[in-house]
Amino acid sequence: MKLYQSSSSPNSRRVRIFLAEKNIPVTIVPVDLGAKEQFSAAYRAINPRSVVPTLVLDDGTAIGEVTAIWRYLEEAHPGQPLLGTTAKDKAQVTMWERRAEQEGFAVVMEAVRNTVAGLKGRALAGPHAYEQIPELAERSKLRAQNFYADFNEHLKTVPFVAGEQFSAADITALVTVDFATGGLSMPIPAQHTALQAWYDKVAARASAKA
Amino acid sequence: MKLYQSSSSPNSRRVRIFLAEKNIPVTIVPVDLGAKEQFSAAYRAINPRSVVPTLVLDDGTAIGEVTAIWRYLEEAHPGQPLLGTTAKDKAQVTMWERRAEQEGFAVVMEAVRNTVAGLKGRALAGPHAYEQIPELAERSKLRAQNFYADFNEHLKTVPFVAGEQFSAADITALVTVDFATGGLSMPIPAQHTALQAWYDKVAARASAKA
Repeated sequence: MKLYQSSSSPNSRRVRIFLAEKNIPVTIVPVDLGAKEQFSAAYRAINPRSVVPTLVLDDGTAIGEVTAIWRYLEEAHPGQPLLGTTAKDKAQVTMWERRAEQEGFAVVMEAVRNTVAGLKGRALAGPHAYEQIPELAERSKLRAQNFYADFNEHLKTVPFVAGEQFSAADITALVTVDFATGGLSMPIPAQHTALQAWYDKVAARASAKA
Repeated sequence: MKLYQSSSSPNSRRVRIFLAEKNIPVTIVPVDLGAKEQFSAAYRAINPRSVVPTLVLDDGTAIGEVTAIWRYLEEAHPGQPLLGTTAKDKAQVTMWERRAEQEGFAVVMEAVRNTVAGLKGRALAGPHAYEQIPELAERSKLRAQNFYADFNEHLKTVPFVAGEQFSAADITALVTVDFATGGLSMPIPAQHTALQAWYDKVAARASAKA
């Protein structure tokens, strides 16, 4: 298996941490986003959306979208499950991972892409060009603050985002915090001590370096 | 099992069609969105995000988010699989369902919520109030047109959205077309004949009436 990815891409990191937790070996193929390599004909033949990451199986099948790559890896390598075990567990992980993604990760991404000068005219990843909307970026920053507050409340009640076990939901929430800190200068506010304690715990895992 | 839902909610319909395809019986509990019942204390105790649908299991476990409800139903009722069978299949369904959702369904939802007078101050579902952004709604409509064009190209190459079999990806794409048609007066453009042929085929299934 080959993972086409970028070391600076938060979506790529969601897959790298997943691989590290499950100890699955892959060949890493760097895609140079700075040089716009994702728009090259060679990469578009692998992923027509021109986004990273993409997992390419040994038979040539290309899988895009983080949750789809995770699904393949979990089904093909069921050891150290990160997407839940029982039907109920799996649903809880899916729910909380999606909430972390929709209320956190995607919101931070939206704020960054609608703000950064280098992404002018490229407010959304993918093959189509869209202009930035500054008002949307402001709303996204407000949503990111609400994400912090809501997840702080939640993490007063459970040790990990989806409940009792570390899961993919923690990976998305961890990458969201680091992305907000680095990309928006929005670290966890000091009053959110439950969220900070959870963060310190998951950031200390070896996989977080991936 | 109880499904808290609204007959007018496109996200609820994604679950109703899934249930109909798999022939799983549930007790339907209507939530009156017009009367803002989703914000009642009783419903917030079931789903703190104040959104529909929510699946409540016999042990009281509440599952929100369409993809999480689907995951539970697929794992607990594996007959008539709609989320794929092999690891590779499951990844393809996840990828294409997500693309239909992110490039289609969520885009139409964004256009509607940032436009409709009755949703002023409620531009995003959930517990927090956000103002509408008209410029965003315009961008969403442009994205919806790109969704139609991109999926038309894709459906020239495969009979169903995720490949050879009907799957959850078709459900999301079908509900997206009906939502765009009803909510934005944006039916499939006449030139997209592959998309229209796919639509006619899936809309003719008995489950589409759900």
